[in-house]
Amino acid sequence: MKRNSDFFKELEEKKILVDNAINYYFSKYSFPKELCDSMRYSIVDSGKRIRPILTLSTAEIFDTPIDIVMPFAVAIEAIHTYTLIHDDLPAMDNDDFRRGKPTNHKVFGEAIAILAGDALLTEAFNIMTEETINKKITFKKALLAINEISKRCGVNGVVGGQVVDILSENKKIDLTTLEYIHTHKTGALILASIKVGLYLSKATKRDFKNLTKYGECIGLAFQIMDDILDIEGDFKKLGKKTGADISKNKNTYPSLIGLARSKEILKDLTDTAIDNLKPYGEKANFLRNFALYLSSRQN
Amino acid sequence: MKRNSDFFKELEEKKILVDNAINYYFSKYSFPKELCDSMRYSIVDSGKRIRPILTLSTAEIFDTPIDIVMPFAVAIEAIHTYTLIHDDLPAMDNDDFRRGKPTNHKVFGEAIAILAGDALLTEAFNIMTEETINKKITFKKALLAINEISKRCGVNGVVGGQVVDILSENKKIDLTTLEYIHTHKTGALILASIKVGLYLSKATKRDFKNLTKYGECIGLAFQIMDDILDIEGDFKKLGKKTGADISKNKNTYPSLIGLARSKEILKDLTDTAIDNLKPYGEKANFLRNFALYLSSRQN
Repeated sequence: MKRNSDFFKELEEKKILVDNAINYYFSKYSFPKELCDSMRYSIVDSGKRIRPILTLSTAEIFDTPIDIVMPFAVAIEAIHTYTLIHDDLPAMDNDDFRRGKPTNHKVFGEAIAILAGDALLTEAFNIMTEETINKKITFKKALLAINEISKRCGVNGVVGGQVVDILSENKKIDLTTLEYIHTHKTGALILASIKVGLYLSKATKRDFKNLTKYGECIGLAFQIMDDILDIEGDFKKLGKKTGADISKNKNTYPSLIGLARSKEILKDLTDTAIDNLKPYGEKANFLRNFALYLSSRQN
Repeated sequence: MKRNSDFFKELEEKKILVDNAINYYFSKYSFPKELCDSMRYSIVDSGKRIRPILTLSTAEIFDTPIDIVMPFAVAIEAIHTYTLIHDDLPAMDNDDFRRGKPTNHKVFGEAIAILAGDALLTEAFNIMTEETINKKITFKKALLAINEISKRCGVNGVVGGQVVDILSENKKIDLTTLEYIHTHKTGALILASIKVGLYLSKATKRDFKNLTKYGECIGLAFQIMDDILDIEGDFKKLGKKTGADISKNKNTYPSLIGLARSKEILKDLTDTAIDNLKPYGEKANFLRNFALYLSSRQN
């Protein structure tokens, strides 16, 4: 494995690539100004870019050119961003801060925030189809990738997870339900990020099996880590209040099974994720380190 | 031209076909129940199905099989439905009634209504890609159709129109701005409905030119008729309050240029729309009658 410093250098390089691509795609929108400002407020220079980096890094294993993958990676981040804007709304989580700055509706008002979310979701599909039509990528691969994203983001994915989360508020739920929430609300798009990288590459059934397992594990691990950070995290590093889950009576892994057991599961998931990368040797070094990074991050 | 009674029979038959297809696609969703109920509440047995009927009828001119077109027609209606749910929200138009029954958020609450809208938009792309991958339609045609839809529904389409509409509330705007609102908020998806029918068919550049003009004209005519109905319509037939535009100080064609001039423009647009169908002879009878129907409807 590469040294840690190499990993963080590569992580930063990839983040800059994604940031630049996002700047490029979202500088194209100019009117209505309030809408475009609102979209850019939430997507430009913001976030860790975990999902697009996963898409790029998965495709990298198969030597798939980055210019084929990038529009899809940007689209995934746009979808992720729309879910954050809508989740933060007063009718949902009613959050005032996100990524260290006021939430979208606090700055632009509820109506524009809802519509900026709608536009980010819609434009994600526009970016993917537009780039496909104009590029060398096969149409079937693109359609499979878009299909995967739409499947993981709708009723049986992100939106479904958010609904069950909302309906579970102030109720005692069991671990199965909490796992449903985590794997759908957060895990689904993380898994989609990886599968899109596969669909756009020359990946075999075996590759899909291995990397799907990797994706499922880090997706759940990511959310468990989030639950842990809400207890142990630091506002400055996190960019949002800690203790919010407890004060809102949210069901989390620590609240259901305790902090120690949550950390054990987090470690097991990370180990399993890394195990599934064995066939890819050095080529999977980044994804290996990424799994470790996600389970030890401070924000 | 066919007799009027024939047209209304065909209109009803097409509506039933669309209703059945929508029932079919939206009976597939079962969990989370509240979400699926909310989605179905707004999309099943509801609405005139103008957009899907336009898609089917455009493709019909070119003898394109209905099973190829229908998933796209359903997806367009799903997108239309999501825009209605979000538009009705307290943060936007704050409407209590839609199509003669309480609006979605009045029944399911704001959070679920927002998420049902998000899910309808997302699942629209899932339905289109899923059916394409499993069917005989060429992938390129499907991608062009999906691209058209995403283009007409985002920043430079429906969402953009809604934003300018909201920002224009209680302000005096000029006719250019009002035309922008109408052609984007309503016209864009009506035009997309027709263009999707073209993309899925063997249509020439000339066909795109003719039917795009038809679509632009009926799209604007449709919204002007809506403005007129808000003054002259009947609650029972309309399923929503009349006079809402006036009481909300909304900018409409009648408020800007008067009722008589609005009706003249409505007639001109309808005539131009029909003129552009000349090359298609009898095959375009339905679309011809449809243009007349849209400009004389009572709901």
